[in-house]
Parts: sequence; structure tokens; C-alpha cells
Amino acid sequence: MRFGRLNHVGVATPSIERSLELYRTLFGAEPASPPFDLSAQGVRVCFVDAPNSQIELIEPLGPDSPIARFLEKNPDGGQHHLCFEVPDIEEARTFYEGQGTRVLGPTRIGAHGTPIFFLHPKDTGGMLTEIMESPKQAH
Amino acid sequence: MRFGRLNHVGVATPSIERSLELYRTLFGAEPASPPFDLSAQGVRVCFVDAPNSQIELIEPLGPDSPIARFLEKNPDGGQHHLCFEVPDIEEARTFYEGQGTRVLGPTRIGAHGTPIFFLHPKDTGGMLTEIMESPKQAH
Repeated sequence: MRFGRLNHVGVATPSIERSLELYRTLFGAEPASPPFDLSAQGVRVCFVDAPNSQIELIEPLGPDSPIARFLEKNPDGGQHHLCFEVPDIEEARTFYEGQGTRVLGPTRIGAHGTPIFFLHPKDTGGMLTEIMESPKQAH
Repeated sequence: MRFGRLNHVGVATPSIERSLELYRTLFGAEPASPPFDLSAQGVRVCFVDAPNSQIELIEPLGPDSPIARFLEKNPDGGQHHLCFEVPDIEEARTFYEGQGTRVLGPTRIGAHGTPIFFLHPKDTGGMLTEIMESPKQAH
């Protein structure tokens, strides 16, 4: 298994709107597209472009969201996960399961419309890691 | 101020050697160059390449290292900072100081041999942020 592009860095925030305002001021950054809900995952997300990668702002949709628990510990928000691309999600899942790396939940459709899963931070040096199948079109 | 490339994601670790072993197994990743000490900052670092960015593994050089305090809270290690490039470090520093964003310490030479400074996570939505002057040569 060889990881591909760092697709994005996931950053938790109590308010996407306030984070966008801050990123505009600090970094001249604009959203790549409007925020949208990923209801099945209990989050609202918005991508912000850097020239070579993206920041994914993630806001809880309710008190049961996994992001809500992260924000209890980190009320200002902060880095939540890294997402690396792979060419084939099923091949990647088979590889990680085969060597005993804990895969969190089923393979599901992620914010970019391609299949994803997460690796447990206890098995990755403390870094919650999203594995994402590369989009078929150029990006 | 407009941020440039996401130069790297800084990841704290209790052991660069063990992290490299883990990254080889999980991600097929090799160090871009051997680990080296940044004694003035109390850390040992090693860069690992992704196709479009880098991971900077950071290990404390001693118990007074700022990374040692991070590892007390996160014994497995974890995401520590994001580093964005700017074309001119003095222009960037003047911009941030002028709008009241807290800049941590003096401008100094970073791991890539160009000037850097850090922004306080309380002023950036919880994300410790390194601002780095782009290397003059292509990268």
C-alpha cells in the first residue's frame, strides 16, 4: 500500500461561518464551494483551497456528532484528521484489515463523492487517517 | 495576505524511528532525507513525502522541548501544526502583527532553511500555524 495525494486536512470548528470569516482575514482564503451537510456522518463541511491541497472545515450537525465530542475537548476547534488518496478503496481496505490495522466502520461515500474509510488513530501514531479513493476526473 | 502551498503537516511522535517504521508499513512511505536535529527549537525532525505535500515527523530532543509537553497530553503523538508558504516572510509578519494576530517568538530559520514563524492557535481557530517563506528553488 502506498499513499497518494494528501487530499485534505480535516479541521473541526464550532462554526464554519466564523472559520470562513477568519480564513478570509488571515489567509485570503475563499470556500471552494458552499458548505453542505453530510447527514449520515452528523457533520456539515466546507472545503477551502490551498494551491496544492484543501482544508475541510467540519462542524457538528448536532450534539451526537463525533465532532461535538472533539469540540468538547478542543472548544476552539483544531486539526481533526488527514485524508490520503488511494487508487482502489477495496484493495486498500483488504490491505489494512489483513495486517490488523483497525478500520472504523463500513466503507462509505465521503465528502468528495468517492468511497472512504477511516483508520483508528491508535494504529497510526495518533493521527486519525481517512483513506479516500481518488476521484476519477482530474482535480 | 494569501496563503500558498501547504508545505507540510507537522506530526509529533515519541520516536521518529518507530513512526518511520509504521509509515513504511501503513503507507509505503520513505523519509525524504535522514532525520536531523533543530537544536534551537528542541526538536529532531524528519520529512516524509506525499506526492503533493510532506509530513514533518517531530520528536522532542529533551524534556524541555515544546513537543514533550504536547506528548504528555497525546502520548501516541498526533497532528501538531500546519505549515503554509508565503512569498515574503517579513511582509507576512508585518501583516499579522498589524491586525493583532499573535505571532509566537522571533522569525527564525526553519527545517527547510528558510525563515518561519508561528501563529498562536487561539487566533487561528485552534490550529497552530507555521508561516514559511517559500524556498527560492523549485520544490
